[in-house]
Amino acid sequence: MIKQVLIGILCGAAVLTVGILIGHYGIVKSSSSAPSWVNDVAKDVDESLIEKFLSEVDNIQIQENLKELTKVPHMATTAGDEQTVQFMLKRWQDPETGLDQAWREEYMVYLSFPNPKKPNKVTVVSPSDSVLHTVREKEKPYTSDKEDPEVVQPYAAFSPAGNTKGKLVYANQGKPSDYQLLNQTVDLRGTIAITRYGGAGRADKAINAAPFGVIGVLVYTDPLDINDGLMSDTNETYPHSWYMPPSGVERGSFKTGFGDMLTPYMAAKEDTYRIPVKNITGIPPIPIQPIGFEDAYRLICELGGQAAPAQWQGAFNCSYNFGSPGFKHTSAFNNSDVKMEIFNYEEVKNSSNVMGVIRGSVEPDRYVIYGNHRDSWVHGAIDPSSGTSVMLELSRVLGRMVKQGKWRPRRSIIFGSWGAEEFGLIGSTEYTEQYFAKLSERAVAYINVDIAVFANATLRASGMPSVQNVIFKAAKQVDAPGLDSTSVYDNWIRYSNRTSPAHGLIPRLGYLSGAGSDYAAFVHYLGIASMDISYTYDKSKTNARIYPAYHTAYDTFNYASRFIDPGFVSHQAIARTAGNVLIRLADSLVLPLNCSDYAETLEDYLNTAVTLYQQKLQAWNISMEPLKRAVASFRSAANQLDQVIRSSDLANETPLKVRRINDQLMLLDRAFLDPLAFPDKYAYRHVIWASSSAGKTTFPGLADAYAKAESSEQSSDWDKVHYHLSVLSQAIDGAASTLVDVI
Amino acid sequence: MIKQVLIGILCGAAVLTVGILIGHYGIVKSSSSAPSWVNDVAKDVDESLIEKFLSEVDNIQIQENLKELTKVPHMATTAGDEQTVQFMLKRWQDPETGLDQAWREEYMVYLSFPNPKKPNKVTVVSPSDSVLHTVREKEKPYTSDKEDPEVVQPYAAFSPAGNTKGKLVYANQGKPSDYQLLNQTVDLRGTIAITRYGGAGRADKAINAAPFGVIGVLVYTDPLDINDGLMSDTNETYPHSWYMPPSGVERGSFKTGFGDMLTPYMAAKEDTYRIPVKNITGIPPIPIQPIGFEDAYRLICELGGQAAPAQWQGAFNCSYNFGSPGFKHTSAFNNSDVKMEIFNYEEVKNSSNVMGVIRGSVEPDRYVIYGNHRDSWVHGAIDPSSGTSVMLELSRVLGRMVKQGKWRPRRSIIFGSWGAEEFGLIGSTEYTEQYFAKLSERAVAYINVDIAVFANATLRASGMPSVQNVIFKAAKQVDAPGLDSTSVYDNWIRYSNRTSPAHGLIPRLGYLSGAGSDYAAFVHYLGIASMDISYTYDKSKTNARIYPAYHTAYDTFNYASRFIDPGFVSHQAIARTAGNVLIRLADSLVLPLNCSDYAETLEDYLNTAVTLYQQKLQAWNISMEPLKRAVASFRSAANQLDQVIRSSDLANETPLKVRRINDQLMLLDRAFLDPLAFPDKYAYRHVIWASSSAGKTTFPGLADAYAKAESSEQSSDWDKVHYHLSVLSQAIDGAASTLVDVI
Repeated sequence: MIKQVLIGILCGAAVLTVGILIGHYGIVKSSSSAPSWVNDVAKDVDESLIEKFLSEVDNIQIQENLKELTKVPHMATTAGDEQTVQFMLKRWQDPETGLDQAWREEYMVYLSFPNPKKPNKVTVVSPSDSVLHTVREKEKPYTSDKEDPEVVQPYAAFSPAGNTKGKLVYANQGKPSDYQLLNQTVDLRGTIAITRYGGAGRADKAINAAPFGVIGVLVYTDPLDINDGLMSDTNETYPHSWYMPPSGVERGSFKTGFGDMLTPYMAAKEDTYRIPVKNITGIPPIPIQPIGFEDAYRLICELGGQAAPAQWQGAFNCSYNFGSPGFKHTSAFNNSDVKMEIFNYEEVKNSSNVMGVIRGSVEPDRYVIYGNHRDSWVHGAIDPSSGTSVMLELSRVLGRMVKQGKWRPRRSIIFGSWGAEEFGLIGSTEYTEQYFAKLSERAVAYINVDIAVFANATLRASGMPSVQNVIFKAAKQVDAPGLDSTSVYDNWIRYSNRTSPAHGLIPRLGYLSGAGSDYAAFVHYLGIASMDISYTYDKSKTNARIYPAYHTAYDTFNYASRFIDPGFVSHQAIARTAGNVLIRLADSLVLPLNCSDYAETLEDYLNTAVTLYQQKLQAWNISMEPLKRAVASFRSAANQLDQVIRSSDLANETPLKVRRINDQLMLLDRAFLDPLAFPDKYAYRHVIWASSSAGKTTFPGLADAYAKAESSEQSSDWDKVHYHLSVLSQAIDGAASTLVDVI
Repeated sequence: MIKQVLIGILCGAAVLTVGILIGHYGIVKSSSSAPSWVNDVAKDVDESLIEKFLSEVDNIQIQENLKELTKVPHMATTAGDEQTVQFMLKRWQDPETGLDQAWREEYMVYLSFPNPKKPNKVTVVSPSDSVLHTVREKEKPYTSDKEDPEVVQPYAAFSPAGNTKGKLVYANQGKPSDYQLLNQTVDLRGTIAITRYGGAGRADKAINAAPFGVIGVLVYTDPLDINDGLMSDTNETYPHSWYMPPSGVERGSFKTGFGDMLTPYMAAKEDTYRIPVKNITGIPPIPIQPIGFEDAYRLICELGGQAAPAQWQGAFNCSYNFGSPGFKHTSAFNNSDVKMEIFNYEEVKNSSNVMGVIRGSVEPDRYVIYGNHRDSWVHGAIDPSSGTSVMLELSRVLGRMVKQGKWRPRRSIIFGSWGAEEFGLIGSTEYTEQYFAKLSERAVAYINVDIAVFANATLRASGMPSVQNVIFKAAKQVDAPGLDSTSVYDNWIRYSNRTSPAHGLIPRLGYLSGAGSDYAAFVHYLGIASMDISYTYDKSKTNARIYPAYHTAYDTFNYASRFIDPGFVSHQAIARTAGNVLIRLADSLVLPLNCSDYAETLEDYLNTAVTLYQQKLQAWNISMEPLKRAVASFRSAANQLDQVIRSSDLANETPLKVRRINDQLMLLDRAFLDPLAFPDKYAYRHVIWASSSAGKTTFPGLADAYAKAESSEQSSDWDKVHYHLSVLSQAIDGAASTLVDVI
């Protein structure tokens, strides 16, 4: 009986267990089983995937990319450019390592070229018109690649054509103050001014000169500013070192704005309305031509007149004189003129962006954009192909993971290989104009890696303060090239740092207030959180204003691999850092954009503004209180949103709450846009980052308006200060109101 | 034994069942049980809730609201206005039927008032300066409420103060063409022009006059235009009917733009920069004063000179003559002047919006906005209190459901009771300026119900084409007042209809291309899908340009309840229709905004543009192909998105897919904004709906540019046509690109 009872109990238990198992696993709970997407929407960035990415980024691949990209010169719209288009398409359409899709987008844009059949000529001519000196037409070739007929003659893009001659003067950097000072001693009417690079924008050297009656401008790179004074190519300069050879010439776009000049605010398509060429502003009104320092040396050291001030002196072993105007009596050039024959011509040409995408899995309508330009002046090994080589390597590693089915980012990734950047950021700007609405609505961030490696000392990064944190995080996970067990972050902090009230000693993130590369339209026109990342030099070891082969024919694979980054380890570190940032932006559940760090910058700016301006503004009865209140609101709203993020278990809440927070973070910079804040500055709409001429680290519109009012003391100018204070306060208030509770 | 086996089997079955039940319900599946929010995010609009809402909307409540709101005159910023602020706050903060939150927001805005101590005076004075006739200062009181000292004297807000006198002329409607024609016969220098309402904007009657040397303008409402010719208050006009009594005067804001004039694009806060008063544009440069038709009759019928053309003749039983200038020789006014003594003054005053919100449950960061102004000219029973009474009734019904825990909308609902609309849509405009970023990012739609009931014949609705469908759906569910088993929709289609290629015969939805009420800033400045809803008259039965008591002292509760909507059943129908639309916008899983209907309008506009302009544009070598391509892209993108919506089982897909589609729909109108498209028109940025003076049903900027070029035949004006074509094509292309696959 006991046995029977026991058997009964056992059987009963067994049956019960079977029942429980059937009940639990066999019957689908009709209303409460989780849909398959519930886990997907809650997924955060996968750290092991980042490790895998870091380990797969290969320096040799980057080197091979660079070799391929720099085979021939690839100035915008040339046959060489088309070769790089095809190369990018081939790589991004590769079935094993390519992206989901890649295509080209064309724009018909206004460019400027020298005439290969009638090269620009600069000569010294005697009163009897005999030529006493001819400036070198092309840079001296040390290796065969520089003899490629596609090496474009040094020229100033957008300089007008023209024949002109006059007595030479030396005008330092061609700033307004330089011409003013020079004009006190020398009558500038009818003169040709020679200027050195630096201090003023390229086009500005001619724009500033014209009002004084100057009729032509030469520009060169002084060895003081680029070569730490070194000048000899027999043992000092390239090919013996990274320094610029005597005949090296920096080419460039001589215009003050960006984007296609004939189609402002509009994508330059075939039928798009184009403004009349005569209405173009911001280009040289008089001919300008860049020359090498070997020729500049000949010209400057022969100049007569009074010695220029100490700050105007360069590295030549002679006195830099103003010019009498013209050359010394004792010179062989006595009484001679400098003659400029410029044959540049303008042409509307087809320029291509190459675009590639990886479609996002969970939020395909959120875009993380990564870009660099593709066009160079000559071979462009460093500028821009170092960046393109890095982009191709990181897109290869990511593309392979996608093609193997191992990964698909939460958000979409868009790669852009921009055309015609060297002519004024044209490809990227046209892209933002064409897709303004779509990008405004959906772009999470823009990562720009143009010149990936200036030199191999340290990371350099600039961006909105909100991206500081994700760059730091990425930089901590990457080994610094050539240093054992030091991270890129730890190395960076040694070279450039600051003390943050919130974080203590941290590396110094730069600001993107200018238009130095393709981030400009993303920052200023679209208000997208952007960053620019590179490896750079130790400023304590060189005074070079940029790497010395910049925009010369010497910026080649040979130069890059021998002098900039032997072994391509700095390239690798940039690919790892930028790729890490990219993956975090694409995959993190909560966007790694920090609004409190933005508040810190606004507070900094405010403190500076109060210190500099408050007293005088009070005298004009203009209150800074609304600005102070706005910054305080922003701080409090930012802290509140941070608190919401910290205190929420977002992986287990509705994905719409995460999306809401992410939208607040993504759209933060949009709130700083005001299309009417800077009506005279093309595409500058971001009231915090617009360019400024006042040279103060504070709100740019306020600083410029104040500087103008202070110098004019007109009450209408003080009104403009008040106006801009209101614009600014309202924008910051508006931004704050997007960060607080949504309702 | 069998029994034992049976018992065993039964027990076993029972135990198995218990086990299954435990297994199924007792043990939580660790990884696959659905989080509680999964059902919430998939919820669609609840039709039974809409039925409940419809049944609870009460006409008597609306009547009581109106009684309360119209107790005293409540012109903006007066004590009566403050009473309505308090009333709104009390209602929206009611613990039983109020909203989640309600508060006021104040702006300091530039207004214009007559001086109660020195009333404006219009007289006829003889050459010896004796007063032969004095225009009535206040409207004739038929009931005691019109004797309230707070009844503001009829005046033209923003007319300058000034004393002026001159010979009278009759200038029809004060259009430029009217003054031109008149000036061919009469020297207008130094004259006073009398004009009738209609044909030109209020301020324009004076702005158009000044260039001809006219020094003052009178304006009145001709019985032809408002009273179907009736004039006698002994038996014909109010209080015997809805018609305007002889002394009735339409007040109004005499300015061409909208928003606070001293703070364009900025919220008018205390320290906000204000432009100098002398820089204000769009207001009368010469004094202007509205008068009643009994006085106009005295003046016009005495005028000398040639008879005005037939189209200029009104309902008076005399010939409308031009004026000699001045009166007939045979008149008692022979040789007399009309004298205007205008004492208006401007003042910056505090005006309040009252705001109230119901927080959304699933997507609190999506806002459906419903608004109307609160301020009136006098008692304002119809304008605006009919709309406010409706808003209060629907917010009461919704608020009670929320307070009882029976409902919370998916999205947030914002109610706005705007201040100072009568002075140029000021409260709503300042609101959009202050919260520009937040509203741009999050506003789904704006519903405006200002004058809820003009008359009780039929629904009238205007809006973006995308809202057509949801208005139709709502109108089909509401009974037409006074008609058995006829819906508001079926009644509407009888009065106003069109044939749509997609839908066949449907009611005609109007467009919101002007700035007639508070929708203006939402449409033109923010690009938010907007609509304006009311009940109105049968146009076959009256020629009244608007309900006759509009902006007079006769717009009272008595008038509204006796002549406009006895029983308040049309008010009820509007509350039901607008509330139904509101709930659908707030609760639908997929936003009920239809992009294909937008495409239909663009195609209409394109067809008209091609018909009107293509031939001549070809002659000027301007291609319409980009515009055609853009509209075709938009159509194809809209169809594609519609197809995605139709073919998806969105209730069972990730909520982020639904959100993505909803974002595409919500942001569609933002893509049509271009802040540079109409630089001379304050806050007009929407390239499809901007105001236009060309009078063509097509793209407004193109139509205006074309009209100008056609009349000037200057090639620079044809350039502007080309420019605007590019602006338009790019905007439509950009909008299309937001509707196609997101990547």
